[in-house]
Amino acid sequence: MTQTRLDVLAIGDAIVDVFATADDAFLDAQKLPKGSMRLIDSAEATRLYGLMGQARETSGGSAANTMAGVSALGGRAAFVGQVADDQLGEIFAHDIRALGVEFQTPAWRGDEPTGRCLILVTPDGQRTMNTCPGASHHLHVSALDEEQIRSAAILYLEAYLWVPDTPRAAMERAIEVAHEAGRKVALTLSDIACIARRRDSFLAVIGAGAIDMLFANENEILALAGTTDFDAAVEALQDKVPLLIVTCSERGALAVEHGRRIHVPAAWVEKVVDTTGAGDLFAAGFLAGQAQGRSVEHSLRMGSAAAGEIISHFGARPLSDLKALMP
Amino acid sequence: MTQTRLDVLAIGDAIVDVFATADDAFLDAQKLPKGSMRLIDSAEATRLYGLMGQARETSGGSAANTMAGVSALGGRAAFVGQVADDQLGEIFAHDIRALGVEFQTPAWRGDEPTGRCLILVTPDGQRTMNTCPGASHHLHVSALDEEQIRSAAILYLEAYLWVPDTPRAAMERAIEVAHEAGRKVALTLSDIACIARRRDSFLAVIGAGAIDMLFANENEILALAGTTDFDAAVEALQDKVPLLIVTCSERGALAVEHGRRIHVPAAWVEKVVDTTGAGDLFAAGFLAGQAQGRSVEHSLRMGSAAAGEIISHFGARPLSDLKALMP
Repeated sequence: MTQTRLDVLAIGDAIVDVFATADDAFLDAQKLPKGSMRLIDSAEATRLYGLMGQARETSGGSAANTMAGVSALGGRAAFVGQVADDQLGEIFAHDIRALGVEFQTPAWRGDEPTGRCLILVTPDGQRTMNTCPGASHHLHVSALDEEQIRSAAILYLEAYLWVPDTPRAAMERAIEVAHEAGRKVALTLSDIACIARRRDSFLAVIGAGAIDMLFANENEILALAGTTDFDAAVEALQDKVPLLIVTCSERGALAVEHGRRIHVPAAWVEKVVDTTGAGDLFAAGFLAGQAQGRSVEHSLRMGSAAAGEIISHFGARPLSDLKALMP
Repeated sequence: MTQTRLDVLAIGDAIVDVFATADDAFLDAQKLPKGSMRLIDSAEATRLYGLMGQARETSGGSAANTMAGVSALGGRAAFVGQVADDQLGEIFAHDIRALGVEFQTPAWRGDEPTGRCLILVTPDGQRTMNTCPGASHHLHVSALDEEQIRSAAILYLEAYLWVPDTPRAAMERAIEVAHEAGRKVALTLSDIACIARRRDSFLAVIGAGAIDMLFANENEILALAGTTDFDAAVEALQDKVPLLIVTCSERGALAVEHGRRIHVPAAWVEKVVDTTGAGDLFAAGFLAGQAQGRSVEHSLRMGSAAAGEIISHFGARPLSDLKALMP
């Protein structure tokens, strides 16, 4: 096994977030369950955007946010994701590079624009996401740089991209390349809707031993295990992955490493402003801890601290000096 | 004189702001005087953007920000400005309409993109602006809707657009249309660089009695009057316009109406986060007060309150309920 040039290389959606505040009545009128994520097409994106208030745009994407956090914590991070050859694509590429994340996926010259996520933030800080994936679902296996994948200690995959066929095929190839080079593969389950659509496929790839590190929240692990009993869900999965990490919102986070359970509480947050990116930054803190050779427990605490920073302001990329917040 | 359908119609730059934090060393290295505004071309915009950190995008433009504020205060506002047929143009149009401002200028299909302003915010809250005007300087007289201009009680003009020939010609025609309909014309001096380049032209239009309401800050009125003595500058201009309004940052604001001076203090602000838009929102509060038939003193207080809101957060469009902050 050769030396690593990168700590983590992520493959995920390349998305620009469009944030606007909204009240509960707006969510009700649009029949949007608070806290949910749904995929929408261009026509629905245009319709909903027309009803939204003045917005603010920032680069997003779940795994991209995680790489932003890893880099902010001093980790060597790279991101692979598909933007289009347009202004939002330029913004995405600028922002992730400005954060020190290696990003070299060529812009796609197809007939869809760079993906957008219309995020409605209610006064309680919850976010309701409407994702128009655009170019990001056209990530083709030919866009991968296999040498880059081999150079990273951990390959981190986002389940959102496991649903459509083209990027899933790219991820499947990336897993092969990483494992052939002796690298570890991490997967985040992203969202219960992804699990509902690809449960057999997730269970197959996990069952085949291809996932070394699995990130999930409570709802996601229940959906994957096909149960409503949290302990049963953890037990069903803990033997299938060497390292299982489950976030439980304000109740902290849990890791199970080779059968041993480790729990840490959530970081204290004065006011929850916007929960967008909490899971993404938790993963960032954890991965940065692993890259630094920290214990699983210390890595969990780093994840909690990073998640605490992100929910105390608007947007899913860190604004404060994350390093200063670490345990 | 027929009834008005609008309180204020503004003509100005249609710009998307790109905010990033920067430290003093970055400004020094780039030889950018703190607090300044400069015009840059596409090549310089690309170079500087590449050096900037992760950014956030929000719609901006000085007079457009002012109309956002007038609308937030319950005024009937319209905006005329030139965007290109691109994603940033869509964002600009969406945002200003979402705030209730009438915006119907057709997108320009030329060879320049929608204008951007790269704004570097230092830890002391000061902003240093680098404007790449793009399509906004291509506002042609043919883009005006003369019936719309006639329907507004006040025509509000931004000096930034008085410098390039094409939009200045459009503004000159708009002044004729407004005056023929018995409407008032307001001008904001925008920036000392504009005055330096078009001082004779500003003095000519003011001297001809075409400006009923002149907005300036201290530096701008000194530059226009060609003196370093503030009282002398006010005296030189107060007889040339029925209503002169001068903002003096933390020392409040001054109006001179037919020779009578009225001063109000600045609103109290807990922490100045970002001064971008302070002058724009001051004008919004003042214009909204005038539209409500308030006294000049009360209108000045409304301007101060609106400016106080905008400098207490990032961005140049209001985030709080401005109406609730009014005196």
